Amino acid sequence: MVITLLSDFGDVYPASMKGVILGINPDANIVDISHSIPRHDIHTGAFVLMTSAKYFPTDTVHIAVVDPGVGTNRRPVAARAQSPDGDIHYFIGPDNGLLIPAARSIGKFEVYEIINRKLFRSNVSSVFHGKDIFAPIGAHISKGLGIEEVGTEIFDFIDLDFGTGIKTADSFLGKVIFLDPFGNIVTNISSRGVELNFGDILEIEGIKVPFLNSYGFCREGEPLTLIGSHGFLEIAVNQGNAARFFDKKIDDEIIAYLSFSKACT
Amino acid sequence: MVITLLSDFGDVYPASMKGVILGINPDANIVDISHSIPRHDIHTGAFVLMTSAKYFPTDTVHIAVVDPGVGTNRRPVAARAQSPDGDIHYFIGPDNGLLIPAARSIGKFEVYEIINRKLFRSNVSSVFHGKDIFAPIGAHISKGLGIEEVGTEIFDFIDLDFGTGIKTADSFLGKVIFLDPFGNIVTNISSRGVELNFGDILEIEGIKVPFLNSYGFCREGEPLTLIGSHGFLEIAVNQGNAARFFDKKIDDEIIAYLSFSKACT
Amino acid sequence: MVITLLSDFGDVYPASMKGVILGINPDANIVDISHSIPRHDIHTGAFVLMTSAKYFPTDTVHIAVVDPGVGTNRRPVAARAQSPDGDIHYFIGPDNGLLIPAARSIGKFEVYEIINRKLFRSNVSSVFHGKDIFAPIGAHISKGLGIEEVGTEIFDFIDLDFGTGIKTADSFLGKVIFLDPFGNIVTNISSRGVELNFGDILEIEGIKVPFLNSYGFCREGEPLTLIGSHGFLEIAVNQGNAARFFDKKIDDEIIAYLSFSKACT
Repeated sequence: MVITLLSDFGDVYPASMKGVILGINPDANIVDISHSIPRHDIHTGAFVLMTSAKYFPTDTVHIAVVDPGVGTNRRPVAARAQSPDGDIHYFIGPDNGLLIPAARSIGKFEVYEIINRKLFRSNVSSVFHGKDIFAPIGAHISKGLGIEEVGTEIFDFIDLDFGTGIKTADSFLGKVIFLDPFGNIVTNISSRGVELNFGDILEIEGIKVPFLNSYGFCREGEPLTLIGSHGFLEIAVNQGNAARFFDKKIDDEIIAYLSFSKACT
Repeated sequence: MVITLLSDFGDVYPASMKGVILGINPDANIVDISHSIPRHDIHTGAFVLMTSAKYFPTDTVHIAVVDPGVGTNRRPVAARAQSPDGDIHYFIGPDNGLLIPAARSIGKFEVYEIINRKLFRSNVSSVFHGKDIFAPIGAHISKGLGIEEVGTEIFDFIDLDFGTGIKTADSFLGKVIFLDPFGNIVTNISSRGVELNFGDILEIEGIKVPFLNSYGFCREGEPLTLIGSHGFLEIAVNQGNAARFFDKKIDDEIIAYLSFSKACT
Repeated sequence: MVITLLSDFGDVYPASMKGVILGINPDANIVDISHSIPRHDIHTGAFVLMTSAKYFPTDTVHIAVVDPGVGTNRRPVAARAQSPDGDIHYFIGPDNGLLIPAARSIGKFEVYEIINRKLFRSNVSSVFHGKDIFAPIGAHISKGLGIEEVGTEIFDFIDLDFGTGIKTADSFLGKVIFLDPFGNIVTNISSRGVELNFGDILEIEGIKVPFLNSYGFCREGEPLTLIGSHGFLEIAVNQGNAARFFDKKIDDEIIAYLSFSKACT
């Protein structure tokens, strides 16, 4: 069974979680999604989890820990999500919104508060629930434990929503929801509403930016827009850093005016 | 069987070790503890190994390479440690102290000089014993080779000791033994001697610092002390970097005066 | 079966490739060679693949993606290489030279253009062939699919060659082909032509540099030359950074004059 890990731990700490998991389920196939989420950045962690988890096979358990409230009264939670095709994904982590966009993107989901202390490690550190609560819970679920065994279903879990960009007669309005490691700007404007053709021109911050299929179609250092691999409208700079080029950070507004299409010229 | 790797190699070189291991034991489950130990920092490597190895299941083989003396006359060694519960951990690496705190923290241990060249790769590079000696030795042990087959037991191995902080009538005296990736200051004052209650106040460098259960109980940017996940007294700054806040580095002295407890106010 | 991954993706994106692979071949043993190749640096990616792949066991599938031309008309390719000992290695990636030095270093090899779209993911992103083409092709080959099933053999693939340093009567002439994470300078002067003895002196950029077996034989901060673990003449600085010391970057010329040997003094 596959178990993925996502955290803001950086180096060193994920290994303890892996040791605990392998002690409970020696057959777990552990895959790191990322341990370089900016520290305490629940928003970025939720985006990365949402856009990565869906590529894993059914029955994968995703343990995610971006957890500024560890040791306070925030609840530990586990979610079970089912895709329209019947694939099941489990999500284990803190009740701070981190898991919810990923669970929702899979399909129908239910959330349980984790309260069954018999499944925890014997000494729960107040600062490392990743190792002492989330890792053992995830390992037990990967061995077949039913999610209803971990606690009680809840409905007042903390939600997190990236919003949905909108299309007007002459523009797209959205916001930055992710800056990838290359500086590409991912917006919340879904590919489904974007009916642009190769070479159409958008105007962003006063700059005319072509809509292309990929980076290599414009010159080095030139900006472009495209439908990125996450399924959203992205703004990029070929072999450059769009976040710096346009001076954008997470949650900044993006307005892209339809300028003129190549077909009209 | 689980094999962990720890090194100061950064990127690229660990992959060659993994290739060699999988060539000998295709069933090895290889887990990285860290490859970002500061270069040649045996002390930090030993601390990370000591605090991570114990979470892995019995019969795990830990290969650790922070090895400024590679290719000189420093000896390659293998250790076998047994916990009070009967768990066995193996440690493979250079004889420079790196492995010893981890082996000792498990329990009783014995150390062997690695001399059986039949177990090495055929061409031993003088600069990469990780690939040519430690990886194959670890892979063979993970397949069941007895540690006595690798060489001869020795008793004059190089030791490394983090010391033990002490408690006086009105203070704790210790030193910095680790700065974690978040800048948290880990001292060598063991949790066993620390009988503090939530809200008790310590005075460190003239600053009054509360003893709390976790980071989230004080405001952002404020310092606190706590028992960290490693089992030692730690000094942290909520969402900040304690090493910079207190200007501390490894081996610096830490004096924490008992100020007054909440119970007295 | 082992599948290795190499890319310039940094964080986050490799996880999607792993999810896709495990969905096709749940028994794949995935090993990261590196995801920190400098962005779009095909040359460095090719060197790292060439010097790492050979340590993996027979039938390993190496998926490598440093791909500035993704989404343009550059072809996806798969190569099958056989060593003199009969070991087989597969290489999957873009047709830009990235795979060829590695395939050639194994032995005889053949290259196929990947055209069998039935093996791709159903929606191929124009910017992430790693996930949608290379990962599924690699996973299918790791399950036993014959390479001739992926497409058509080609002979006009893009090649990449590191050249071969030469030895004159009184010097070695070569160039920098890799700077490792420690700043060691790897040249294209093969160990086979280097008949130097411990303590011989080379003169590089006017500085007398001893030929030694390993870093620890000279003082901290002093330069040395050695045969590195890659099998080439390397220039290093003990506990320092040779690339900065000699101000060298990839492709820079290296001239090392034979100064005088210890035997003559």
